Amino acid sequence: MIRGLTRAGLGKIESNEQFVRLAHRYGFGAVDLDVRSWFDQEGKERAQATLEETGLVVGSIGLPVQWRTTEAEFRSGLAGLAASAAAAAEVGCTSCCTYVLPAVDENAAHFMALATRRLRLCADILGAYGIRLGLEYVGPHHLRTRWANPFIWTLQETLDWIDAIGASNVGLLLDSYHWYTTNASVEELQSLKPAQIVHVHINDAPDVPVEEALDNGRLYPGEGVIDLTAFLRALQATGYTGPVSQEILTQSPPTDAPEVLLQRSKAGFDKVFSAAGL
Amino acid sequence: MIRGLTRAGLGKIESNEQFVRLAHRYGFGAVDLDVRSWFDQEGKERAQATLEETGLVVGSIGLPVQWRTTEAEFRSGLAGLAASAAAAAEVGCTSCCTYVLPAVDENAAHFMALATRRLRLCADILGAYGIRLGLEYVGPHHLRTRWANPFIWTLQETLDWIDAIGASNVGLLLDSYHWYTTNASVEELQSLKPAQIVHVHINDAPDVPVEEALDNGRLYPGEGVIDLTAFLRALQATGYTGPVSQEILTQSPPTDAPEVLLQRSKAGFDKVFSAAGL
Amino acid sequence: MIRGLTRAGLGKIESNEQFVRLAHRYGFGAVDLDVRSWFDQEGKERAQATLEETGLVVGSIGLPVQWRTTEAEFRSGLAGLAASAAAAAEVGCTSCCTYVLPAVDENAAHFMALATRRLRLCADILGAYGIRLGLEYVGPHHLRTRWANPFIWTLQETLDWIDAIGASNVGLLLDSYHWYTTNASVEELQSLKPAQIVHVHINDAPDVPVEEALDNGRLYPGEGVIDLTAFLRALQATGYTGPVSQEILTQSPPTDAPEVLLQRSKAGFDKVFSAAGL
Amino acid sequence: MIRGLTRAGLGKIESNEQFVRLAHRYGFGAVDLDVRSWFDQEGKERAQATLEETGLVVGSIGLPVQWRTTEAEFRSGLAGLAASAAAAAEVGCTSCCTYVLPAVDENAAHFMALATRRLRLCADILGAYGIRLGLEYVGPHHLRTRWANPFIWTLQETLDWIDAIGASNVGLLLDSYHWYTTNASVEELQSLKPAQIVHVHINDAPDVPVEEALDNGRLYPGEGVIDLTAFLRALQATGYTGPVSQEILTQSPPTDAPEVLLQRSKAGFDKVFSAAGL
Repeated sequence: MIRGLTRAGLGKIESNEQFVRLAHRYGFGAVDLDVRSWFDQEGKERAQATLEETGLVVGSIGLPVQWRTTEAEFRSGLAGLAASAAAAAEVGCTSCCTYVLPAVDENAAHFMALATRRLRLCADILGAYGIRLGLEYVGPHHLRTRWANPFIWTLQETLDWIDAIGASNVGLLLDSYHWYTTNASVEELQSLKPAQIVHVHINDAPDVPVEEALDNGRLYPGEGVIDLTAFLRALQATGYTGPVSQEILTQSPPTDAPEVLLQRSKAGFDKVFSAAGL
Repeated sequence: MIRGLTRAGLGKIESNEQFVRLAHRYGFGAVDLDVRSWFDQEGKERAQATLEETGLVVGSIGLPVQWRTTEAEFRSGLAGLAASAAAAAEVGCTSCCTYVLPAVDENAAHFMALATRRLRLCADILGAYGIRLGLEYVGPHHLRTRWANPFIWTLQETLDWIDAIGASNVGLLLDSYHWYTTNASVEELQSLKPAQIVHVHINDAPDVPVEEALDNGRLYPGEGVIDLTAFLRALQATGYTGPVSQEILTQSPPTDAPEVLLQRSKAGFDKVFSAAGL
Repeated sequence: MIRGLTRAGLGKIESNEQFVRLAHRYGFGAVDLDVRSWFDQEGKERAQATLEETGLVVGSIGLPVQWRTTEAEFRSGLAGLAASAAAAAEVGCTSCCTYVLPAVDENAAHFMALATRRLRLCADILGAYGIRLGLEYVGPHHLRTRWANPFIWTLQETLDWIDAIGASNVGLLLDSYHWYTTNASVEELQSLKPAQIVHVHINDAPDVPVEEALDNGRLYPGEGVIDLTAFLRALQATGYTGPVSQEILTQSPPTDAPEVLLQRSKAGFDKVFSAAGL
Repeated sequence: MIRGLTRAGLGKIESNEQFVRLAHRYGFGAVDLDVRSWFDQEGKERAQATLEETGLVVGSIGLPVQWRTTEAEFRSGLAGLAASAAAAAEVGCTSCCTYVLPAVDENAAHFMALATRRLRLCADILGAYGIRLGLEYVGPHHLRTRWANPFIWTLQETLDWIDAIGASNVGLLLDSYHWYTTNASVEELQSLKPAQIVHVHINDAPDVPVEEALDNGRLYPGEGVIDLTAFLRALQATGYTGPVSQEILTQSPPTDAPEVLLQRSKAGFDKVFSAAGL
């Protein structure tokens, strides 16, 4: 598995180039970022040179399509999806992810039908570029009642949805925080096949009752109560060898310098990866 | 359009052969029945001869697969589905239908995901035999709260689900009773394309507030308050030329002789078809 | 059915606006053109105003994706496809077409596999914009041996391919020239369902043995030997009500003024449409 | 990887029970056989008890559907497919395979279109039972010209076809004999993902020019010239852990006693598995 980072929880980083260089300096092998806008903002050759020089890979891009609202908004993102996928493919990235909120204001069954069709099309477009689509179920309890109607929030429900979508290149984004807040077992993780895992997030949770763990109350790996050793070992048992990226969502952004936060992240990864024998 | 019958509302009919002969005698051109069990019970040659002699067609068969419960029950129906489709195809029937309850006890989104995958497979199997799958949305208000969670019950939601299922041979079973109890417009019907309509049911409703019309409180066509003239004209405007079958669900079964009930059905069809200029 | 035109066979027309205005002046109701490039070249508001003023519709756009060569070329067209579909949808166009050559230099089976996947994705993207994909089989005998290996060139083979593609919004572009050069019957046309016909081309053939009719040896409707009366009547029997567009491919471009060629086209349509009772 | 056997090359074995017991006695862990007919012929409880007692698994069943000829023949196998899949699932078998001849008498592109649709449906039915469909490309040169038109016969073409079929549960049956006769590389094998490999056959080839290796001229593993060490190591590098089954097709059936042939098979497996460090 590859130690990875998102920019969430790293403080003020000026550019994707700085992000990549810092990640590299602190021993990470993967970064999650929007390749297309990086190309646009900092230049494609320069971006590619930075990756080549540091040896880093892009772990995953975010799905740049609004699949949760109107058909017009959905459509308006499709041309951009092809462009984003093309850019990601140019740096060898094979993963694109989106999260799934555990409740919706719409009729949940109808929302599911619309979302199934829309995500199938997104997956099909991504597939033309050799990219898989990862769906991240979201576990924190407070979000399950944040909107009017319950949607889905467990690993198994998400696998069932992936079957309904019916495209071969759709799988899970597994986040230790959601694994924890849904009280899922090690066995559930272990029984997954490599093709079912598109991407992995690793975060830790504070020592509060699991029902009170807030989505934006995350801790750096190793600083909390999630059994990340078990999480990583289970992933390894599946044969997963891809990026495991930290994504620290907090109520207010951290004020420490990026170098301090990266050092803290590195310490966390060192701790949990070595505990897991990785 | 072809005047059609189901056995619901016709009293005690002894056999499918009697059903077909009575339907023929009272001027109907289509019957909805289970072809496979007819073959099994009364003999395939005899069944085919009866259809040939009377000139009747089979309007639709029911979907013989339990797609609403466990995976094991679903699986157990698949071999039978192929056999049922083969029997239906032998008499030229090109339609197979199932109804969709407007509420479920399960998580509605998860149920939708499971049902989408299962009905896609049913449609694909039917498609191998040239048969289309019709989904009947169910409108009566009392059923929307009969189970814990709302599912879907409108024409548009059902079309969106059909898109999510994503098989070319899936469409609507339109029932005037559900069209009425969902307060749908003539325009909604008219704007449908022939390929979107798999089968049609025609029934009438008592003169009670629409919210109080019970699913098993149906009247024979022309005996109630539904504007069946508008319903039939709208269907004709779509180019639909298939069967329009009566399905009289009542709280207690009618006690009149089948001949009396068929005469009553015929009178109803005469009235509404002629009012619609058919 | 709506009388339609492509620009093939109309001589030197300066702009799409001129094309639309001329089509209108000579009694046509539909034009086939590339909406997106029209918007780009002549301005979207102006293009829309021209259509509104004349009452013309856009019959079909061409598929702007190279699905016949490398994966890289195929991919490079996908973002543009979404943009083209969006533009077409803005003027209410619901059809996008591509032709299928009857022979290929590649292994025919492998080419079929690649093309099936690629056209499915194109259809899926178009479907998000309410647009159907029409496949035009190509009949002239000389093209069947123009490349190393036979591909497909009959109506039935194309229907079978459409089934293999498996998207509900794929159908046929029927061209009278290909119908003629494949010796297809009136019955074959008549038995089609509306959903199977995406678009229609109408052209005539010279009085030579059918095996010698060249793809770029076409005549204006009514000037040749194809039984266009039967062709149009069969289309009408299917319930098809869309555009029927002329596409006169010739070895050297016509040198007459566009007005002369449009008058000639109009005379041809008048002749064959009135003979068919349209 | 699990040492596996088919009955091809084992001489006269009286029953599946004897087959399983012999396989067990000679150290094999998997057998390929038709579970449904085993249940029918020797009794389901007894069959299940035999597997349980010996610890053997069923590696794969054959696809019991005729997808190469008429639509009627294809249809007639679908009910049986569901029944066969149900039986296979009862013993935990998750693989069903069919071979793909490298030439056809039909138009190759049209055959590909028909076969794509048919195999997708087979895959979808199998998928309901948790079973994957493996396609075995067939390499021997003499078969490529045995029928009128070339079809496909390479690993990459088969992967492209699998993409065209578009069901997530379709993959390859890799046979060392076809890998050898198509001159494929170790790299091609190594680059496969576990999800792309459904089943594996292992056979050896005589010391003749590769173009002259006959499909029914196979040798037991380790008795010929195929680099089975490289083959097995490449498989292991992909993460494949399933059955590797011998299938010795010969011009005349071997006359030795099954025990002799099984001992010979065991010796072959011992040799090549230990050479590969397995």
